[in-house]
Amino acid sequence: MIKVMIYGANGKMAQVLSRQIELEKDMEIAVGIDRYNSDGKNKYPIYSDPYEYNGEVDVIIDFSHPSNLDQMLDFSIKRKIPLVIATTGLSEEQLKEIEDAAKKTAILHSSNMSLGINILSRVLRNISKLLSEDFDIEIIEKHHNKKVDAPSGTAYLLANVINEVLDNSKEYTYGREGKNVKREKNEIGIHAIRGGTIAGEHTIIFAGDDEIIELKHTALSKNIFALGAIKAARFIVKSEEGLYTMDDIFCK
Amino acid sequence: MIKVMIYGANGKMAQVLSRQIELEKDMEIAVGIDRYNSDGKNKYPIYSDPYEYNGEVDVIIDFSHPSNLDQMLDFSIKRKIPLVIATTGLSEEQLKEIEDAAKKTAILHSSNMSLGINILSRVLRNISKLLSEDFDIEIIEKHHNKKVDAPSGTAYLLANVINEVLDNSKEYTYGREGKNVKREKNEIGIHAIRGGTIAGEHTIIFAGDDEIIELKHTALSKNIFALGAIKAARFIVKSEEGLYTMDDIFCK
Amino acid sequence: MIKVMIYGANGKMAQVLSRQIELEKDMEIAVGIDRYNSDGKNKYPIYSDPYEYNGEVDVIIDFSHPSNLDQMLDFSIKRKIPLVIATTGLSEEQLKEIEDAAKKTAILHSSNMSLGINILSRVLRNISKLLSEDFDIEIIEKHHNKKVDAPSGTAYLLANVINEVLDNSKEYTYGREGKNVKREKNEIGIHAIRGGTIAGEHTIIFAGDDEIIELKHTALSKNIFALGAIKAARFIVKSEEGLYTMDDIFCK
Amino acid sequence: MIKVMIYGANGKMAQVLSRQIELEKDMEIAVGIDRYNSDGKNKYPIYSDPYEYNGEVDVIIDFSHPSNLDQMLDFSIKRKIPLVIATTGLSEEQLKEIEDAAKKTAILHSSNMSLGINILSRVLRNISKLLSEDFDIEIIEKHHNKKVDAPSGTAYLLANVINEVLDNSKEYTYGREGKNVKREKNEIGIHAIRGGTIAGEHTIIFAGDDEIIELKHTALSKNIFALGAIKAARFIVKSEEGLYTMDDIFCK
Repeated sequence: MIKVMIYGANGKMAQVLSRQIELEKDMEIAVGIDRYNSDGKNKYPIYSDPYEYNGEVDVIIDFSHPSNLDQMLDFSIKRKIPLVIATTGLSEEQLKEIEDAAKKTAILHSSNMSLGINILSRVLRNISKLLSEDFDIEIIEKHHNKKVDAPSGTAYLLANVINEVLDNSKEYTYGREGKNVKREKNEIGIHAIRGGTIAGEHTIIFAGDDEIIELKHTALSKNIFALGAIKAARFIVKSEEGLYTMDDIFCK
Repeated sequence: MIKVMIYGANGKMAQVLSRQIELEKDMEIAVGIDRYNSDGKNKYPIYSDPYEYNGEVDVIIDFSHPSNLDQMLDFSIKRKIPLVIATTGLSEEQLKEIEDAAKKTAILHSSNMSLGINILSRVLRNISKLLSEDFDIEIIEKHHNKKVDAPSGTAYLLANVINEVLDNSKEYTYGREGKNVKREKNEIGIHAIRGGTIAGEHTIIFAGDDEIIELKHTALSKNIFALGAIKAARFIVKSEEGLYTMDDIFCK
Repeated sequence: MIKVMIYGANGKMAQVLSRQIELEKDMEIAVGIDRYNSDGKNKYPIYSDPYEYNGEVDVIIDFSHPSNLDQMLDFSIKRKIPLVIATTGLSEEQLKEIEDAAKKTAILHSSNMSLGINILSRVLRNISKLLSEDFDIEIIEKHHNKKVDAPSGTAYLLANVINEVLDNSKEYTYGREGKNVKREKNEIGIHAIRGGTIAGEHTIIFAGDDEIIELKHTALSKNIFALGAIKAARFIVKSEEGLYTMDDIFCK
Repeated sequence: MIKVMIYGANGKMAQVLSRQIELEKDMEIAVGIDRYNSDGKNKYPIYSDPYEYNGEVDVIIDFSHPSNLDQMLDFSIKRKIPLVIATTGLSEEQLKEIEDAAKKTAILHSSNMSLGINILSRVLRNISKLLSEDFDIEIIEKHHNKKVDAPSGTAYLLANVINEVLDNSKEYTYGREGKNVKREKNEIGIHAIRGGTIAGEHTIIFAGDDEIIELKHTALSKNIFALGAIKAARFIVKSEEGLYTMDDIFCK
């Protein structure tokens, strides 16, 4: 039985993760870390300081906030507990800290935990070069009408995967309007559709001479990030020190 | 057998129309009008002046240029020959001229001759009011990478149909980009995708609470405009004086 | 404030409805009817017999079982309380009973409460005749891998709407396989895709000469049936005796 | 300038290929082989016997018929001219003959010449194993209403690519209909939509827990097979003896 410590246990994504882990047969939550106590909201104890918890922990899953990073890395190294970091919004400096810490503990870090988006990234790395000469690349993403930023972080993640393979030769375009706005060959058009309660959809279009290839990912709920984190936890508990990504799971 | 006079006979769309009429059993091209002679390129004679042609004509189909309008309306009235106008780019003044002429001859005029786009317009007029309160409206259109204007004229046509039904309460948005660009309720997002040789695709999305309705039209070639013009010709030869649109065909 | 009696209050859909009504400002649940008591599971009292409840009720919403129909119709007539019937699986005989009861009380009955599916039905009634000559009709529906029946009831509902408009001239086809299975003009192909946790998707395709029209409905959750029932309740509380459908809501 | 010999020059696909080669700057058609003479229909000479032609030839492209295989392989070997075989319907025995011939001449053979379908096959080989445990696999293909066989050869090609990677553990299902037809885990549903003039569309759906990955290929015309054959010709003229597939083009 894999015993999990959840960092940021009272947050929205951690709660989704909790409900999912309850359904998994090889995993259970031992303890949650959160600065706020939550009075029996959870079926496991909450501590504000991980060092206060004396029970056994096999893996840490982090859905908290960048401000907890230092403490968490320390704890992972000292207690030799592998770590899955699913927090977003980390600074360049913090990414460097993670890299350094990974020399002494096993860390898996990804800015999108869903299996599907990671598979699509892998596919894009594989085919973008083959297609770039003959095909125009456009990305459409759809999200609910409450989302404040556009395009989505995941749309940028996918566009950047393509652009890196193509030696950063592409420029992103966010909306075409006018009488004389013919597409340039080096454009990647990124289009942000907003409406209703759409959970998240990303389509990458490769449009060529008389043929089109489309890769599409549809998220039906936030639960996919929990499922990805659980897969990541299963992987990292068996790994040596080092820095891993979701892609490493698929290669094994 | 319906005998057709094609105005602008040597133009691209008129050529598509010619090839299609050859396949129709109840219709044939009697004569083409074009300022350029074309030396046996066509199976029918070409005249620069319609009055020079003395044969029988049952209907005129116009895929030429706004500059021919005056002559064509005169000819239609004098010879009592019904007229299908499929030319785009007409001025407000010219639209008024057509209205006046239609008191003396039968005219069908539409800025998009395809059956499908006209059906979609009809549907939008029918449902937009019902959906506008609970659903966010977005339009995606896709065309080939040589197209210079964006969004397409047809995307505007569809957006305007919706907006008219909703008392012009909507504003069009052409691209979302930034950290703080939350969708406003009165927006219609119009997104122009460009790539490869895509002939033309228009999708209207109504996204609401946990449900989405989408209406999509795909054009596989320019031939659909010819097919629509042929349907229009069959309709107008049996009509009284007056101004008609493609929608009138469906109501009969 | 509209006071609601929910029939079948402990069922899955009634629970979804309860949670949604809590969010509505003009509506509250007065009482639930269910043969099983539920010990404080709900924020409202549960009775097994509606006549035992003496409080005020403005409208009944039924998400229970066909076996409750007789009692419920009696109660609605005697107490003069309008009724929304969202139960599925009613027999021909029971549909006749509803018709009779509707002479004495206001009843809205629909086999699919979602706004979107009802809008699509309305559109299909409107355009199927116009398109039937030139377009081939196919339906694709997608649902989760636990669904036991195929095609879905809603796919049949949509196909039947089309077929009725076309004088029942169409035959349904459920899978094409073989060396010599050319499509017949009178076929409607209905294709049931099953996979993962897809909540429900229905696409009607009209494929013609070089153009395609598609109408698509996507359900993101069961909540849309609750939202439809709430709209129906608001409508029926203001209606005279008679039998209504979701379509009547849109016509007013 | 690459000088091309087209086998089956008067066939439909060869004519599409001819028109495309006219637009290519590094390639021209030297001669066509066909048992029927065609009286000036083509801009190049037609011979019924390739040995009668004495001009220079750099590459042979075959869009003819399996019955020409023996003669063509002989000619390719004797004259040391590389060969692109795009003919379909070859027997097991003939595939073996091609293999043998490829020891003495350079041959590229593929049952679908389009760049896009070959890229999709490559992607499927790459990801099917990763996804097979958690995702249900379904294929939808769409073609025009004149097509006699279903599912399409390309749908089978794609399904077989998946099935081979998964140790042939999958069974194909062609239509679901009934009250008790729950999906089995080892099914690949293959759904053949037929309508209008659709040139060809293939979608592979991986549907999992709350997420869906879709790979889609749209053919807008037969020209994509010509474009693929031209790419194949450019590749094979620079290759040593051996048997190649479209996939080898992408790896270089």
